[in-house]
Amino acid sequence: MIIVMKPNAPQASIENVIRIIESKGLETHLSIGKEVTIIGVVGDKSKLQTENLEIAPDVDKIVPVTESYKLSNKKFHPEPSVIKVGNTQIGGNTLTIMAGPCAVETEKQLLSIAHAVKASGATIVRGGAYKPRTSPYSFQGLEEEGLRYMQKAKEETGLATICEVTSLDAINAAVKYVDMIQIGARNMQNFYLLKEAGKSGLPVLLKRGLAATIDEWLNAAEYIIAEGNPNVVLCERGIRTFETTTRNTLDISAVPVIKERSHLPIIVDPSHATGVRAYVKPLAKSAIAAGADGLMIEVHNDPARALSDGPQSLTFDQFHELSNEIRPYATLSGRTF
Amino acid sequence: MIIVMKPNAPQASIENVIRIIESKGLETHLSIGKEVTIIGVVGDKSKLQTENLEIAPDVDKIVPVTESYKLSNKKFHPEPSVIKVGNTQIGGNTLTIMAGPCAVETEKQLLSIAHAVKASGATIVRGGAYKPRTSPYSFQGLEEEGLRYMQKAKEETGLATICEVTSLDAINAAVKYVDMIQIGARNMQNFYLLKEAGKSGLPVLLKRGLAATIDEWLNAAEYIIAEGNPNVVLCERGIRTFETTTRNTLDISAVPVIKERSHLPIIVDPSHATGVRAYVKPLAKSAIAAGADGLMIEVHNDPARALSDGPQSLTFDQFHELSNEIRPYATLSGRTF
Amino acid sequence: MIIVMKPNAPQASIENVIRIIESKGLETHLSIGKEVTIIGVVGDKSKLQTENLEIAPDVDKIVPVTESYKLSNKKFHPEPSVIKVGNTQIGGNTLTIMAGPCAVETEKQLLSIAHAVKASGATIVRGGAYKPRTSPYSFQGLEEEGLRYMQKAKEETGLATICEVTSLDAINAAVKYVDMIQIGARNMQNFYLLKEAGKSGLPVLLKRGLAATIDEWLNAAEYIIAEGNPNVVLCERGIRTFETTTRNTLDISAVPVIKERSHLPIIVDPSHATGVRAYVKPLAKSAIAAGADGLMIEVHNDPARALSDGPQSLTFDQFHELSNEIRPYATLSGRTF
Amino acid sequence: MIIVMKPNAPQASIENVIRIIESKGLETHLSIGKEVTIIGVVGDKSKLQTENLEIAPDVDKIVPVTESYKLSNKKFHPEPSVIKVGNTQIGGNTLTIMAGPCAVETEKQLLSIAHAVKASGATIVRGGAYKPRTSPYSFQGLEEEGLRYMQKAKEETGLATICEVTSLDAINAAVKYVDMIQIGARNMQNFYLLKEAGKSGLPVLLKRGLAATIDEWLNAAEYIIAEGNPNVVLCERGIRTFETTTRNTLDISAVPVIKERSHLPIIVDPSHATGVRAYVKPLAKSAIAAGADGLMIEVHNDPARALSDGPQSLTFDQFHELSNEIRPYATLSGRTF
Repeated sequence: MIIVMKPNAPQASIENVIRIIESKGLETHLSIGKEVTIIGVVGDKSKLQTENLEIAPDVDKIVPVTESYKLSNKKFHPEPSVIKVGNTQIGGNTLTIMAGPCAVETEKQLLSIAHAVKASGATIVRGGAYKPRTSPYSFQGLEEEGLRYMQKAKEETGLATICEVTSLDAINAAVKYVDMIQIGARNMQNFYLLKEAGKSGLPVLLKRGLAATIDEWLNAAEYIIAEGNPNVVLCERGIRTFETTTRNTLDISAVPVIKERSHLPIIVDPSHATGVRAYVKPLAKSAIAAGADGLMIEVHNDPARALSDGPQSLTFDQFHELSNEIRPYATLSGRTF
Repeated sequence: MIIVMKPNAPQASIENVIRIIESKGLETHLSIGKEVTIIGVVGDKSKLQTENLEIAPDVDKIVPVTESYKLSNKKFHPEPSVIKVGNTQIGGNTLTIMAGPCAVETEKQLLSIAHAVKASGATIVRGGAYKPRTSPYSFQGLEEEGLRYMQKAKEETGLATICEVTSLDAINAAVKYVDMIQIGARNMQNFYLLKEAGKSGLPVLLKRGLAATIDEWLNAAEYIIAEGNPNVVLCERGIRTFETTTRNTLDISAVPVIKERSHLPIIVDPSHATGVRAYVKPLAKSAIAAGADGLMIEVHNDPARALSDGPQSLTFDQFHELSNEIRPYATLSGRTF
Repeated sequence: MIIVMKPNAPQASIENVIRIIESKGLETHLSIGKEVTIIGVVGDKSKLQTENLEIAPDVDKIVPVTESYKLSNKKFHPEPSVIKVGNTQIGGNTLTIMAGPCAVETEKQLLSIAHAVKASGATIVRGGAYKPRTSPYSFQGLEEEGLRYMQKAKEETGLATICEVTSLDAINAAVKYVDMIQIGARNMQNFYLLKEAGKSGLPVLLKRGLAATIDEWLNAAEYIIAEGNPNVVLCERGIRTFETTTRNTLDISAVPVIKERSHLPIIVDPSHATGVRAYVKPLAKSAIAAGADGLMIEVHNDPARALSDGPQSLTFDQFHELSNEIRPYATLSGRTF
Repeated sequence: MIIVMKPNAPQASIENVIRIIESKGLETHLSIGKEVTIIGVVGDKSKLQTENLEIAPDVDKIVPVTESYKLSNKKFHPEPSVIKVGNTQIGGNTLTIMAGPCAVETEKQLLSIAHAVKASGATIVRGGAYKPRTSPYSFQGLEEEGLRYMQKAKEETGLATICEVTSLDAINAAVKYVDMIQIGARNMQNFYLLKEAGKSGLPVLLKRGLAATIDEWLNAAEYIIAEGNPNVVLCERGIRTFETTTRNTLDISAVPVIKERSHLPIIVDPSHATGVRAYVKPLAKSAIAAGADGLMIEVHNDPARALSDGPQSLTFDQFHELSNEIRPYATLSGRTF
């Protein structure tokens, strides 16, 4: 941590800051420039948590030097993590494809989709039972009944399963039926839910919030891991910007940035990122080329009648075509699926 | 709802769309232009919820004509709402000042702050007992103990009280102790929590999400009201943009926009919007001049040692000065406090 | 300037950075922490401009300590500037009202508007003769003919005049006819134009770019002042965000931020910021309450038939009402007009 | 164009709108819903340019149905354009690699870079002679001298050449020396410069503005083409968002969106988009996989001492490695270089 003093800060103000820092048992290093004086703090800066040096007299700004996340930080855990989910994995040389409907609608629907996506190479079937919808008048999901269909899909196909959870009740139900839980973008900073997801013991797919910086995203992962659950996978699904031709803006750079800063696997969801079916395939390829560990793709037996996110869902044929076309990109990137 | 067809869409595609709409018992109006054909839908568009016309052949785009929120919509409820909170109110000719610490730290701290803000004109004391913090290593709040101190503050000062809630447990505790609950920015689209807040029966302060459009914000309010709880107050607290000199960007235009679209009161929180103490006073005045129904201001007995958000908290003297200076702006805007 | 090394950077990398810095005649201060080593640079950092230390081995990041703008910086020029324009001024205890049509259309139109805005208290008439329009098929302005009408308006009313310039040709014409030139938002980083505006000798109104940080904005002002022209006035006119209910998002916080960082006056343009006539009045009041030195307001004799920006233009009556209503806010803020 | 009336708009207001539209020789189609009435306009909407129907009584909103750009629109020009530049081309089955330094510094530097990038497969050498820099105290470019070096580089290597232009003077110089001119992000809505670029006759690389929507970008292209110059290539180089780990946010979705809406080729500049050398290679692959027609990459003989953008520039070895690694991605995407 570095404290930058205002130009010509009086000696008394500089000494005041030094006194506060040293009173916590930390050392300081002074750098006296022509214009400004800089005070470096040596030692465990968490001891300064209760001192708001920003508003001490004549302090210009505080510059943090180390990240606040530790358990998700590559600096302290250089080996890439590989996360087991059911009988498959995310990370390593695998390209993991998660596919399925936005919302579970009926048992029959889900089973037909599960069989179809398996046939095209997916190893995890996704399906929403608790749906966060902008309007209260939109379909809100089948809840526990939907989870039971997910279990059935797993039994029939052998695919691993993932469901979004939106409350402690949903987590308590999910642990009975599915292999992995998802924290959605709108709950990325629902810290209560993050802690409960950590306690659940299930692997967690943590989607990036619409307005979340990468630093905040890794801090959200930190909440889960700090509960003793290291099985976190990140999912880039688009951030909110001024551009409106796509539902969100896929931040493809997040893939190499995360690879540099964290050991956690990262997958990409081009369906939610764009909201437009025609853009899913090129962006799926793009994500693989950028180094993603997997994809999450929305697939529906009848997109024109899907209860949620139909316009961005692929038909079985479209998903099969996508799967065929991305395979050589996976190979090029040193991955198989 | 209007369906815009692609240029030169074949007659069969146009007829297909008409057939789908009419199959739901709705009427269509055709507008055949030189370049494009437009199909207007007459009737209750919710009947089309399960038909994703966006991906019907040769459809270019769907243009919604009416908002998806009804209960929070001024069109259907033209009179401005006035919300009772304890023995005070928000809306009407009142300028409501909520003030207090970001986090409740001790009983003594809270009581001293409550007395101070009351002396300067606040009618509601705020204080966080459940703190959503970016890092799991930051202070997380006193939880129910903090709520008890809030109750004590109310008994001693007669001020109404407000606390943020972050889970169903927190709501269940809050109803026993405080007059109003707050849904924070990070939970604005935690729809589970919104529904539970609606069921609680307490008035709800709904902060705008960092990346929430005004349309999404009013839909979030709709979730609460749809549970039978019409007592919702909106709070603009800054949105996330590229600018970094302030913690967030206060969207001051949201005040007149909300006044035009909704009957719900709106207050402004310049403390969180800017994150900088020096900007709180000019923006408080600015909010009143724009038409806000109230302010939420962070005040602390010792900002330099506050466990949360110290740099943006005012001292008692600063708050007293702010209170004195904003009073004539309130008068000019036809409000009293 | 501070160089933060990566955790456990080898001694050789640290010495390499020190060697580069000292080779330029600068001093270093070392702060060796438990995790990271920090190197402070003492002296004129511009000597390091040709050394990209960011990519020296094991450098984590470079933290600038001082701003790159000097002439527009309050640190080096603490007194607020007052800028003379024609026979009026911007800054000090004045609230300057600039008003007029988006585009000059005819002599008659401009004269009638000039008389009307003068009657309501404006001291500067605005009018566009060179119009930057999103589409090439929109009205592009009367060019020099429009400037001549501006001169006529000045002669008839005694108002000072301001016109946007978009090229060196436009500047060369403008110096013959008007009192102040405007660099529009889309040209805020047209550095060629900024330099030419600096050379023109005329006072310059510098609008903030749609995606410009405050730091970039003050650097743009620096380009003008560095040419020997200190007469720069800043204009906040909304930044681009995800919100679409207003054309742009008025960054009202920019007013106190600029007041803290720069000695230059700042005015606010609520017409362009919102694009909606109904929001202009509340935001005009809001701007004054936040501390702005003036306003720029679009006024038109017949907004329904304006060739540019009609929907955000006020009628004469609306402007007169605005003028009357903002006067007590100006008084409260210690300003007159 | 569709006019949506407010709920329960009186008949007189509806008739007023119809009267205005029909007075311009256009037809209307009325769609009378339960809540709102919608008026469709049939015919050439440019006839309504001088009527601001948004502010006619009881009009709720205007919905445009067709794009304002025509010449750059795929609807009216379905075949993808292939643009000739020197003895190479952009578009078709080619993957065009443009590479070179951010700024031309010396003849020797430029020639060594030109030879190196040619050896690795680039067919166009880039180099800035007129540099738009945030601060006036940064290196501003060699101007015409730099252009002469570019011509020399062309003569020595046979590569085509591209230079950014920032003024009419720069365009007039550039036509004498280089094969293609570039309009930079900061000048994307410098409409004066766009028109002059159109008149120059040279092919134009049009970079996307930091805050430009895709619609605005295609309208900027329209300015160039409307001057009789159809040789426009688009370049996605990152947009401004809240995320700060990269200098800008590469909007990779822009590639498929442009492919759907326009016939113009689109290339990607991962160097400026990220500002970080380590991210250039993964994003270069990503861009090809998404369907880009080419890449613009910054390469420097000594990035640590580059006068501009050193931290994002590749060394010769790094560029050679990138070139080798992207080749199979190009092949997969059906392109050669």
